[in-house]
Amino acid sequence: MYELGVVYRNITRTDAVTADALAPLGSATVHEAMGRVGLMKPCMRPIYAGAQVSGTAVTVLLHPGDNWMLHVAAEQIRPGDIVVAAITAECTDGYFGDLLATSFQARGARALVIDAGVRDVKTLTQMRFPVWSKAISSKGTIKATLGSVNIPIVCAGAYVTPGDVIVADDDGVVCVPRALAAGALVAATQREANEGDKRARLASGVLGLDMYKMREPLAKAGLRYID
Amino acid sequence: MYELGVVYRNITRTDAVTADALAPLGSATVHEAMGRVGLMKPCMRPIYAGAQVSGTAVTVLLHPGDNWMLHVAAEQIRPGDIVVAAITAECTDGYFGDLLATSFQARGARALVIDAGVRDVKTLTQMRFPVWSKAISSKGTIKATLGSVNIPIVCAGAYVTPGDVIVADDDGVVCVPRALAAGALVAATQREANEGDKRARLASGVLGLDMYKMREPLAKAGLRYID
Amino acid sequence: MYELGVVYRNITRTDAVTADALAPLGSATVHEAMGRVGLMKPCMRPIYAGAQVSGTAVTVLLHPGDNWMLHVAAEQIRPGDIVVAAITAECTDGYFGDLLATSFQARGARALVIDAGVRDVKTLTQMRFPVWSKAISSKGTIKATLGSVNIPIVCAGAYVTPGDVIVADDDGVVCVPRALAAGALVAATQREANEGDKRARLASGVLGLDMYKMREPLAKAGLRYID
Amino acid sequence: MYELGVVYRNITRTDAVTADALAPLGSATVHEAMGRVGLMKPCMRPIYAGAQVSGTAVTVLLHPGDNWMLHVAAEQIRPGDIVVAAITAECTDGYFGDLLATSFQARGARALVIDAGVRDVKTLTQMRFPVWSKAISSKGTIKATLGSVNIPIVCAGAYVTPGDVIVADDDGVVCVPRALAAGALVAATQREANEGDKRARLASGVLGLDMYKMREPLAKAGLRYID
Amino acid sequence: MYELGVVYRNITRTDAVTADALAPLGSATVHEAMGRVGLMKPCMRPIYAGAQVSGTAVTVLLHPGDNWMLHVAAEQIRPGDIVVAAITAECTDGYFGDLLATSFQARGARALVIDAGVRDVKTLTQMRFPVWSKAISSKGTIKATLGSVNIPIVCAGAYVTPGDVIVADDDGVVCVPRALAAGALVAATQREANEGDKRARLASGVLGLDMYKMREPLAKAGLRYID
Amino acid sequence: MYELGVVYRNITRTDAVTADALAPLGSATVHEAMGRVGLMKPCMRPIYAGAQVSGTAVTVLLHPGDNWMLHVAAEQIRPGDIVVAAITAECTDGYFGDLLATSFQARGARALVIDAGVRDVKTLTQMRFPVWSKAISSKGTIKATLGSVNIPIVCAGAYVTPGDVIVADDDGVVCVPRALAAGALVAATQREANEGDKRARLASGVLGLDMYKMREPLAKAGLRYID
Repeated sequence: MYELGVVYRNITRTDAVTADALAPLGSATVHEAMGRVGLMKPCMRPIYAGAQVSGTAVTVLLHPGDNWMLHVAAEQIRPGDIVVAAITAECTDGYFGDLLATSFQARGARALVIDAGVRDVKTLTQMRFPVWSKAISSKGTIKATLGSVNIPIVCAGAYVTPGDVIVADDDGVVCVPRALAAGALVAATQREANEGDKRARLASGVLGLDMYKMREPLAKAGLRYID
Repeated sequence: MYELGVVYRNITRTDAVTADALAPLGSATVHEAMGRVGLMKPCMRPIYAGAQVSGTAVTVLLHPGDNWMLHVAAEQIRPGDIVVAAITAECTDGYFGDLLATSFQARGARALVIDAGVRDVKTLTQMRFPVWSKAISSKGTIKATLGSVNIPIVCAGAYVTPGDVIVADDDGVVCVPRALAAGALVAATQREANEGDKRARLASGVLGLDMYKMREPLAKAGLRYID
Repeated sequence: MYELGVVYRNITRTDAVTADALAPLGSATVHEAMGRVGLMKPCMRPIYAGAQVSGTAVTVLLHPGDNWMLHVAAEQIRPGDIVVAAITAECTDGYFGDLLATSFQARGARALVIDAGVRDVKTLTQMRFPVWSKAISSKGTIKATLGSVNIPIVCAGAYVTPGDVIVADDDGVVCVPRALAAGALVAATQREANEGDKRARLASGVLGLDMYKMREPLAKAGLRYID
Repeated sequence: MYELGVVYRNITRTDAVTADALAPLGSATVHEAMGRVGLMKPCMRPIYAGAQVSGTAVTVLLHPGDNWMLHVAAEQIRPGDIVVAAITAECTDGYFGDLLATSFQARGARALVIDAGVRDVKTLTQMRFPVWSKAISSKGTIKATLGSVNIPIVCAGAYVTPGDVIVADDDGVVCVPRALAAGALVAATQREANEGDKRARLASGVLGLDMYKMREPLAKAGLRYID
Repeated sequence: MYELGVVYRNITRTDAVTADALAPLGSATVHEAMGRVGLMKPCMRPIYAGAQVSGTAVTVLLHPGDNWMLHVAAEQIRPGDIVVAAITAECTDGYFGDLLATSFQARGARALVIDAGVRDVKTLTQMRFPVWSKAISSKGTIKATLGSVNIPIVCAGAYVTPGDVIVADDDGVVCVPRALAAGALVAATQREANEGDKRARLASGVLGLDMYKMREPLAKAGLRYID
Repeated sequence: MYELGVVYRNITRTDAVTADALAPLGSATVHEAMGRVGLMKPCMRPIYAGAQVSGTAVTVLLHPGDNWMLHVAAEQIRPGDIVVAAITAECTDGYFGDLLATSFQARGARALVIDAGVRDVKTLTQMRFPVWSKAISSKGTIKATLGSVNIPIVCAGAYVTPGDVIVADDDGVVCVPRALAAGALVAATQREANEGDKRARLASGVLGLDMYKMREPLAKAGLRYID
């Protein structure tokens, strides 16, 4: 992997209906539905609270302190995409600001996920262009070295293939591989469907111990109550 | 310490009047009043700004990636309690979400303090159920291994005995041992009482150098002014 | 450097017109205009979002867990100053709270930048007294050891001489040396002037690839497009 | 807890035979034998490889940047003790060097465990006085503020009561409460006794899958082999 | 990716001649030869200095605090393999000790690379079984949850497919995809071949400025010398 | 500060006799002698144990992932120098390996101090060319952007002017400004002279409490002994 200096123009995106339907389920439910895998590291935080999106991944591989390929990536964005950017080494520089956000937004991008830093966060917040990053930094970057666009990358510990679905909200970022997206949607929807009833019962004072029938397995495991 | 697989049902809580009176004084003043001890590490942050609570500790010891005992703890909650959770090893998983919060809130819990991660933070914010944690993460947990409830624990560097008072706000989390709570309340109230007058004098332009009579000790320590 | 136990009363501040004019340009643009240097580490974060200030630096060198010199510094503040505090070793204690903020504000200070912790952040937010720090902590400090006021310091990786301009916003904190302030203002203003037009073109769908004429250098560097 | 300004002279130490017998078993085996609790955080590292000790805890509570109480603690050391030091806030200063080590060694101390920094590590290595710490730093400390000696403390996440047994080696540091020491010794010795036979069988090529009879539970859990 | 509960028994390993030939070239040269990609994060450190190995990857996906699948992986090891283990969430527990090392060594494994902790490091050092990990910890693990063996994983930021070549030494760990291994060997060998001559010239006092003909590009870039 | 693209050829070095005499005193004693200032952050660690050096600083400012200026710096090295390198943003890349070390050593450099990563550490250890860095990484760098040589820099939190003395050993790295070097040498030598006697007395069992006459000030501060 990590072919350098290439841009793949034709990628197979997850179908839009599936990709869009995952956003309201949220990263936690989707991640559970996939068997608790696919999550980016918890250092990936939104620049403002409340954004909740899903979309298809356009991937970018960048070098430390160099954001040239984000401009190359802009041309590959289609409405409904989320740009996912990895760096070849650890870096907290501010790769992305309001000008690039304006361009990404004009191309139809819904968000940026970047394993580095961003800047102009006040303006990005006013523009309502959400970014998940591991740092906020005024530090600018140069445009000198080729990376790649739309190759498989590792971003914040998650493997992302172009066209996969990204689900991001206040809890974090999860990547759903294209081949698993339909199944994840079904499973996550079922989890969600069960939750309304559970919430009502818990709100009425029913204990999870009883609702989930945990008393017997706990006793079997040896739990002792002491008065 | 660290008896595993036990739940102590009868704990001696700090009296409610004292426990409740500490909230408005805030973690910084209470911590000062105790002699600058009892504080959890500053990595413990609130999931939303502005919450300020105090309450009596129900403690939980959990294993990495396993939240089973939070369900056991729910049954031990009484109105006015704050659940304090420690993990036997470092972990940032999301142990707690909106369903458990619904249950805790129904039982009368005022907050959760956990030396790990939480999720569903957008919903928790809407529910106004405050959590202090060291991480936010979509990563779910399993229910497989016994920990304990209401044993003394170490949470984020602070030793917490069941029934102690927890004071938490935007500045952090402090634990007030039950035996010291009444004294801490008196001392903190006195500190607070002095502050109004001080604030007015400082606001009028009086210098702390003069108000606290620091000029002499500073000169004695050798401070030199150079024009 | 690091003369201990001294207070320089007469410092040469950057002229107020220049210092004040840098705030609206923001830390990212100013830092770019200086050649991408002068930035504090990205761990320096504002205690609340949205503050954007510039001012002349009054510097303070403190010891771990000891805030005595902040009181000494208060007397040296003039309207338009920003206090910049360094510690002789790593420390996250809460050196600064609402009383000191009241005093600083009464003296005309616009902000505090401290390579340590602060507390009373809820009150500081209500007072609209912005602080950039690397931690928030209830942990109080003592008043026992002399540091210095208005000597050159290293704060969060940046070298700050008294009278330099500090520019701070949601993206971070940058220090502009006094001798470079006028030039930085000109350069930053020019950068900013160009941005309005660029933003409009990008918003209309023009690509940075074309606007910045990147296609040729990218091809020369060997970028390949694969369909 | 955290009574300040006191020195408890009479502490009940775990009996020497038990305390001494735990060293050769090592921190990992002892920690397993206690049910996987009692461990300090893995940031606690030895200043040189190969030391393996156990002994009875003399505890010290220190303030950031202040090592005064280590001198007070020296007088309380008896042969076979290990000094365990906690700080009231996070600090990496070098609290301890070759002079204090000479004094501690003369008093019969076997090691120092400190949740902060140490210095003179080359000399300490030559003296064969082992230290487990979270930092190495030339930064010196002052002698200005009272802490305490022989009160219960939290050190690197572990609760340590004076007289408990500390077991430390290249894998880390574990605290065995006095009341559990005899039981932990028995359990750890049994674990160790089984290991020789297991090691021989594994070395001969027998798989853990067979030796521990894991194949059936793995199949029951659903493990699938794909050729 | 991240199929759970499966063990792939037939993987296509890079041919042994190529895999073995990469060790003496070292991680830095191999990583350069691949275009500066494929490296694990620098937090991955060897448990003892001086080991330098290469081998074919057998991959394992584990859950936090659970090392069950390492026993499953042991059976899949062939002489010349290096086991590479990823965890589904951040964890520093000690997953691996001397018993597992004995078994791995008996099966012909050359090393373990794990994005978590290990223990028994003194014994592992005596056995000369090298491990690269991000932590050393006495903390033991349980055997309760299924992961997978020989699926593609992300380990410390690098994507590893079963059968890829791992090159590890004191500088770090690099993964060479199977399809690129032959090419990387050629390129790395060429780099290495040039170094002997360069080293001799630099040792004789020739400057890199002249040897690499940098003076002209530096002048063109605007470098100014000031006397 | 931070003039970019310049090389100062004529710097005023601290006289060699003073610079050389500081090495055997060590970083901790020198740092104490200067009033506990001038220290680099404790993340700066030697790549092998036991090296203890002092020398005059040749400074370099580098960009993230770009080591071009290290080649420029090589020409400015004179026998007895230590190269001190800062980066304009946080970076852990391996900027320096055995070829550059060969060149530096041929020019008479005694060591490298770099606020980033290095590689080829096994060879550097065999060459006995010591490096203090915050990371070890195989990650290579490019040669594309101008920094500067022999301008004042901030390295790991310390301000270093060309020609200052650097003292580095297993405890860390301290910078002694040229103007203070003679005084620091005197003060450090005096501290050292006193230590032999103190060590002998402590070794004989005399307590620091008595030797330093601490009993009275401790009692005055309120220390209580409890039997």
